[in-house]
Amino acid sequence: MAYSPSVQSLMEALRCLPGVGPKSAQRMTFALLQHDRDGARRLARALETAAETVGECRRCRTLTEEDLCQLCASDRRDPAVLCVVENPSDVQALEDATDYAGQYFVLKGRLSPLDGIGPGELGLEALEARFTDGEVREIILAVSPTVEGEATAQYIASMAAEADIRISRIAHGVPLGGDLDYVDAGTLSHAFAGRARYG
Amino acid sequence: MAYSPSVQSLMEALRCLPGVGPKSAQRMTFALLQHDRDGARRLARALETAAETVGECRRCRTLTEEDLCQLCASDRRDPAVLCVVENPSDVQALEDATDYAGQYFVLKGRLSPLDGIGPGELGLEALEARFTDGEVREIILAVSPTVEGEATAQYIASMAAEADIRISRIAHGVPLGGDLDYVDAGTLSHAFAGRARYG
Ligand SMILES: [Zn+2]
Ligand SMILES: [Zn+2]
Repeated sequence: MAYSPSVQSLMEALRCLPGVGPKSAQRMTFALLQHDRDGARRLARALETAAETVGECRRCRTLTEEDLCQLCASDRRDPAVLCVVENPSDVQALEDATDYAGQYFVLKGRLSPLDGIGPGELGLEALEARFTDGEVREIILAVSPTVEGEATAQYIASMAAEADIRISRIAHGVPLGGDLDYVDAGTLSHAFAGRARYG
Repeated sequence: MAYSPSVQSLMEALRCLPGVGPKSAQRMTFALLQHDRDGARRLARALETAAETVGECRRCRTLTEEDLCQLCASDRRDPAVLCVVENPSDVQALEDATDYAGQYFVLKGRLSPLDGIGPGELGLEALEARFTDGEVREIILAVSPTVEGEATAQYIASMAAEADIRISRIAHGVPLGGDLDYVDAGTLSHAFAGRARYG
């Protein structure tokens, strides 16, 4: 190995980033050390801060270092409408693509019993509590059209039916197996506007 | 913006990495915060350490936090043979691919007067000093076959001629096992012009 320990450690540490293989890690290491030490230091601090402080919103479960995220804390968002998504990035994608003015609930996954992901892992008890306390009147499901997404949708639909809450699901203009945040804003906006009754 | 300040800062800081756009930065942020906080902390420390400690080898200019890199410090490498490369990663590539047992000199660039990169930026005075102090008897050029690489090669060749040092350049052409129609036109043209007697 021709690299010094610090250079080698940086190359290895960069591999924790999804999509970064040995070649990219090497390219990143040299780019930072030769041309952007300030960027490297800034990234180090951002990683450290985020790793230490970011938890989840106690209401919607999205990633935030605050107790309540900005959307849950806002008095300009209608608490009677709740859009259920799989990932924090889906919230951003919907905010960018639509003029939705309700609130969100972030599952951080989908039901997948074989992987040990049940209702508890997705915070569905907390969601059910919000259904039964009477504040929520409408649910919009924006979960992915995958097998696990379907199972998740059906589970939430049955919870909603029991609480007598209207439920819809965004239209399947979203490509099968596609993550919401990889869909272009136009398609996502169309799918959101064209959501159909569900359950 | 639906992200909290720490999450947003991390996404922005990741953009200092080459090849990382907004989507990748977002994907990396969520992957780290949801599944790999230890990786994030390790990466933060590696960035911090490397940014603070890594300088260049005083002999070959490669990136290292030591005074002399491991190859320059080794008594098993022949100091009479010097392979001149453009980047620290080229050293690793040659170490992996060959049984070369000499030393290296890393230019960290190529002559490009329009970009303000002259002999001084490439450490060519230091290289010339090593030519004239009598230790180096052979130079192997492993610079790229680009316009700037050619200019760099010629500059070093004239320095070597003055010091009466033997000089060679690695062959450029069609990769072994490569189909001609998958090779870029520049490489093929170069390989054709540089054809050697055969049989
Ligand atoms: Zn929230
Ligand atoms: Zn060295």
